Amino acid sequence: MGVKGEETRARLVAGTRELIEAQGYFGTGLNRIVAATGAPRGSLYFHFPGGKDQLVAAALTEAGQEVEALLSAPAAEGADTAALTELLVEAFAERLVKSDYSSGCPIATVALETAGTNEALRAVCAEVYGGWQRVLAGRLEAEGFGPAEADTAAGQVLALLEGAVLLASVRRSREPLDHARHAVRHLLGKHDA
Amino acid sequence: MGVKGEETRARLVAGTRELIEAQGYFGTGLNRIVAATGAPRGSLYFHFPGGKDQLVAAALTEAGQEVEALLSAPAAEGADTAALTELLVEAFAERLVKSDYSSGCPIATVALETAGTNEALRAVCAEVYGGWQRVLAGRLEAEGFGPAEADTAAGQVLALLEGAVLLASVRRSREPLDHARHAVRHLLGKHDA
Repeated sequence: MGVKGEETRARLVAGTRELIEAQGYFGTGLNRIVAATGAPRGSLYFHFPGGKDQLVAAALTEAGQEVEALLSAPAAEGADTAALTELLVEAFAERLVKSDYSSGCPIATVALETAGTNEALRAVCAEVYGGWQRVLAGRLEAEGFGPAEADTAAGQVLALLEGAVLLASVRRSREPLDHARHAVRHLLGKHDA
Repeated sequence: MGVKGEETRARLVAGTRELIEAQGYFGTGLNRIVAATGAPRGSLYFHFPGGKDQLVAAALTEAGQEVEALLSAPAAEGADTAALTELLVEAFAERLVKSDYSSGCPIATVALETAGTNEALRAVCAEVYGGWQRVLAGRLEAEGFGPAEADTAAGQVLALLEGAVLLASVRRSREPLDHARHAVRHLLGKHDA
């Protein structure tokens, strides 16, 4: 694929990410994606012969990888899991405020919409969340948690974060995220800083 | 309104609840609601002159009140907040399993879809979550928490529950909910039963 092809593909994925974050899977039609990205319809089908679902899957995977990268970034090295979780909370809070509370977790809306209606996309969302949980669990193991205990705690932290992002979006306030940060420290047995 | 009118209205709200829980706000058109409930289109506009958004608001409010009633039911009296939360976790888990994981929290999908796109429905969702949080906070105050501390803890518990329901739907497993139950006890300073 040439540079131009790569650019068009990237533009399609970026536009889809923005649209599904703001209005979900069902609210995002291919016409909107074409209009928002300015990509020719032919190039959409060239890069994504599977159409909307393939494009949405690519958008979810890319967004998921960004969060995984954040959790593995140099800034995260040396940080304990509680501090690492705070990085994630802060990243979500910034996204929310910057988007006027329309973009929280890049996965959650589509995850809920497709859980009972679209097995392929449900599986993509499950894989993304599974990846985040594994990174967190790996950190907890390195801090001395047993494997099962680490997995459970990582799942609890993830649930708390996802719920807090949801409540923060709905309330148009970052307060639920700030409170979640304290709860994460409590759950992981750390004192508040 | 006659008995028949009441029945038609209730049927419309129940059908809308089912549809928005399974496929969200954007995935639920008025045509689907009419087809699923068998209600004449004229009666839809008679009962809900505001159309789809008024119907969805009524569905969200009704679902929210059911959860509030559960939290205030005789079975909940005498239970401490941790035990009360377990009732709610169990209710969500049963809904999930019974619906083959298509219906979790009756508010969350629409809440995320509308947070950035539909101010009236966002406000309805915020009001429903606020009501649940107030009931939980009231219980915590009765157990000796100060008002601010009770509100914060209730918000943390609610975030944990909502996130766990989301992860349970996506994974098609009630495990995140079972783990959340333990985390709630930990957050509220109770030992596991």
